[in-house]
Amino acid sequence: MTAAAAATPSVRHERAGAEPVGFGDLVAARVAARTSQLVLGLDPDPARLWPRAIELTDKRMDASTSRAERAARAIAIHCGLAIEAAGEQCVAVKLQVACFERLGSPGWGALGEVAARAREAGLLVIADAKRGDIDVSAAAYAQAFFGETATEYGPVPGLGADAMTLNPLLGLDSLRPFVDAARERGGGVFVLVRTSNPGARDLQELPLRRGGTISEALATMVHQLGADGVGEAGLSDVGAVVGATAPQHLQTLRELMPGAVFLLPGVGAQGGRIEDLGAAFAPGPAGGLIAASRAVVQAHERSGGDPGAAAAREAARLRELAWRLAA
Amino acid sequence: MTAAAAATPSVRHERAGAEPVGFGDLVAARVAARTSQLVLGLDPDPARLWPRAIELTDKRMDASTSRAERAARAIAIHCGLAIEAAGEQCVAVKLQVACFERLGSPGWGALGEVAARAREAGLLVIADAKRGDIDVSAAAYAQAFFGETATEYGPVPGLGADAMTLNPLLGLDSLRPFVDAARERGGGVFVLVRTSNPGARDLQELPLRRGGTISEALATMVHQLGADGVGEAGLSDVGAVVGATAPQHLQTLRELMPGAVFLLPGVGAQGGRIEDLGAAFAPGPAGGLIAASRAVVQAHERSGGDPGAAAAREAARLRELAWRLAA
Repeated sequence: MTAAAAATPSVRHERAGAEPVGFGDLVAARVAARTSQLVLGLDPDPARLWPRAIELTDKRMDASTSRAERAARAIAIHCGLAIEAAGEQCVAVKLQVACFERLGSPGWGALGEVAARAREAGLLVIADAKRGDIDVSAAAYAQAFFGETATEYGPVPGLGADAMTLNPLLGLDSLRPFVDAARERGGGVFVLVRTSNPGARDLQELPLRRGGTISEALATMVHQLGADGVGEAGLSDVGAVVGATAPQHLQTLRELMPGAVFLLPGVGAQGGRIEDLGAAFAPGPAGGLIAASRAVVQAHERSGGDPGAAAAREAARLRELAWRLAA
Repeated sequence: MTAAAAATPSVRHERAGAEPVGFGDLVAARVAARTSQLVLGLDPDPARLWPRAIELTDKRMDASTSRAERAARAIAIHCGLAIEAAGEQCVAVKLQVACFERLGSPGWGALGEVAARAREAGLLVIADAKRGDIDVSAAAYAQAFFGETATEYGPVPGLGADAMTLNPLLGLDSLRPFVDAARERGGGVFVLVRTSNPGARDLQELPLRRGGTISEALATMVHQLGADGVGEAGLSDVGAVVGATAPQHLQTLRELMPGAVFLLPGVGAQGGRIEDLGAAFAPGPAGGLIAASRAVVQAHERSGGDPGAAAAREAARLRELAWRLAA
């Protein structure tokens, strides 16, 4: 498949005989249908791919292929294999855009291919891009990930993601173009509220003079921004990124954002434990989406054996843990 | 030129008989040599290009070229023409990555071409990417913009930017991989401290319980992060983005970051005035870099006449204003 074809947005949010649903209802429906809250995080390192991906890449290459093109093919195949192995256990993929972007133009082609592959497997596509910019540039990023760009030669489609992560430092007017573009096509956004890294403390946990922390101020912003986007399941199309590594904040953040879907990264390699994430599921089983990246895709490095089988096993284990917790 | 060739980092920071200089000294030397603090902001809109760019694009295309490729060629040519017209008045270009990214894979190719074109014209290349992520992903973005990526097939070079803009919401550990990668090659970073948009107030101006605002906390972080990167000119390789639209904060921010180069966007279309930016230049003529995007590239929409001539005139006027202010 070409990158251009892969990037063409589908009409997958339309259901026969019904209007497109909002993102909150879409997530609720998919979580219920797949009995999973697990998100397969794909952050491919082209120096650490599954051996099978390298075999398949070598076969498809000829001498004229550049290094970047070769590496981009390899990461696309690697991600495809991971989706094949573990996708059935998951409700979505989370694509770490940095890992594609570092291969330049062919890397962006691979991003489109992997998004298309995930969609074919029935998975929602979350672009973990952490973008944020002033209004006109935010609108350009929204075109890149959700919409299309008007050009002299006709519209050029973007990635066609279902959702993307956003950095809210620039304030409400920097988030609105993304929310508008997402809402228009039944997609959603996940705004960084409390990230999973140790440095999250440097800024996000600083107390404000008016009371509460910066994270809590962000949570209030998320709740306001999402108020118009709450669906029948009680979930909004404006969600929040809340690191699984700091579960002590979950309860407070849930109270501030009762209708937000929480995207919870940091399980596994970063030290987060699913067992600690119960508060995320207060609004129901779709209240939290648990992202596991290295924990699943590199499971064979701990368990030994075939990477695909190890990924499938670990994904099944995490899915089961989460489902029991949310029940 | 191919995108791959365009993206190959040059050794331009080496000077005959001398070690590579740090970014602060590089900026100081370039500002002095070009007697300019003006930064040409390039945020190409493929529905609003200079007519000459469309003419040249049509000539180079055949029927098999996709829309996205055609639009990407057009924005690369448009930016090349803008550099040709106004580059002589400037010390750097600031490439708004969103405007390239929205054309997907060909858009990233165009980004590399424009960076190469700017470099040929003797201009520093600032990628306005506003990236920020947890350590491992920050390192991947740093590979995309500054370094190279190790792959099974050998290293793949990144964009080869001289500097990029960063979003610090995730804290110090999210910034360090960028600073390390930049420093290693004599480049620098500009950390968002107070942005130029109206929404900057929503978060950045909130007062902290410990005193000062979030912007001021960010300024302190920038100062700490840049302490090891100060060159002979007294300028650090960790700079700050400070919007020209809120000059009332300049004095305080300058005191908190005495050695930071300020990247000052928001002149012109967003309402900022060069005359109000004096405090930025306390450390000398290279203390502030003034970014003008639409003000220059769309100057003909106000003045009439040839876009190139109008851009050159407006750039010359802004350069002169800034140079007098900093003298």
